[in-house]
Amino acid sequence: MALPMLQIACDHNDLPSALADIKAVGDVVDILEVGTILILQEGQKAIKCFRSMYPNKLIVADPKCADAGGTVAKNVHDGGANFMTCICCATLPTMAAAAKEVDAVQVELYGDWTFEQAQGWLDTGIEQAVYHQSRDALLAGQTWGEKDLTKIKKLCDMGFKVSVTGGLNVNTLELFRGIPVYTFIAGRGITQAPDPRQAAVDFQNKIKEIWG
Amino acid sequence: MALPMLQIACDHNDLPSALADIKAVGDVVDILEVGTILILQEGQKAIKCFRSMYPNKLIVADPKCADAGGTVAKNVHDGGANFMTCICCATLPTMAAAAKEVDAVQVELYGDWTFEQAQGWLDTGIEQAVYHQSRDALLAGQTWGEKDLTKIKKLCDMGFKVSVTGGLNVNTLELFRGIPVYTFIAGRGITQAPDPRQAAVDFQNKIKEIWG
Repeated sequence: MALPMLQIACDHNDLPSALADIKAVGDVVDILEVGTILILQEGQKAIKCFRSMYPNKLIVADPKCADAGGTVAKNVHDGGANFMTCICCATLPTMAAAAKEVDAVQVELYGDWTFEQAQGWLDTGIEQAVYHQSRDALLAGQTWGEKDLTKIKKLCDMGFKVSVTGGLNVNTLELFRGIPVYTFIAGRGITQAPDPRQAAVDFQNKIKEIWG
Repeated sequence: MALPMLQIACDHNDLPSALADIKAVGDVVDILEVGTILILQEGQKAIKCFRSMYPNKLIVADPKCADAGGTVAKNVHDGGANFMTCICCATLPTMAAAAKEVDAVQVELYGDWTFEQAQGWLDTGIEQAVYHQSRDALLAGQTWGEKDLTKIKKLCDMGFKVSVTGGLNVNTLELFRGIPVYTFIAGRGITQAPDPRQAAVDFQNKIKEIWG
């Protein structure tokens, strides 16, 4: 089983604080994510800063694109992003238009998506998906459970490269043992740790321990 | 029947060209929209510029928020926006969190939403919705039809204030005669007209002619 990658989600409200965290953990993680909150606050400039600081690192832009896929994808790619997220209720033409402009589109799974829709994304050539615990759902007390793991396994079996996110920490990684997760996405679990760099190292070590 | 409002959607790739269009039509339209593409490119600054140029105009921020509703809504409201869009597949906790931070949340209807979901939004206190023809669907050849009008009427009957958008021009307004549309949202139909200000005036006159 391939080693899952580690992605740092930068959902900061401002660029300076995001850049401080990126500088601290950028060499340790595999993927840098320009999160939704950050991109809405700072625009394409945030992507450009990440790219200029890390010329060779994978970068995901997370606009959760719902329409105008071609334009949004071209813009984030011009800024330096490799991957871009589309929201799962975007139409197939939107996802297809986006997919032409970036290395890969990742479908963000929120709300009432179906496996029938998921097959449609695969048939359109979209083979990455992001399985979430919504931050607002987490705040409302929900957590990872067997129904989440079953869905993630099924998506993997269908052929998706599945990224997983939402309230992850080093201890919750154990829940995913045996599942070929593509990427673990951590935000506050790393950036709000007492030592963010050490937290990222701990994540990577735990990933190697379970999947290595 | 109340007069529908006219909203200019600024989906520009850069702030300078958006500001030029806003300056041209801002006094004619009722609502200024900081479009998704613009906000992803320029960030909160775009909202702040619109607000500083038009201190008393209604402003909609269109991030199509899918998660972290409270944070995103607080940020756009801090920038000066009155209303904010959430994507229809956002969870109810996301919409509810957003609704606490702005004057109103507008649900952007994309893909396979249901009227059962719509009732849930109403029950959560969300009473504005945006009915779209997706730009990518329009590019793929779809257009306004009876099935769209039927859905819009039903949403109005349920109690929603419905904004309508997607490839609108002065001639297509006639299709909506008899429907209590809350707002017509036009983008290129105004900004790419030979005389954008005149195009906005023509929209307003046609609205008065049909709904006045």
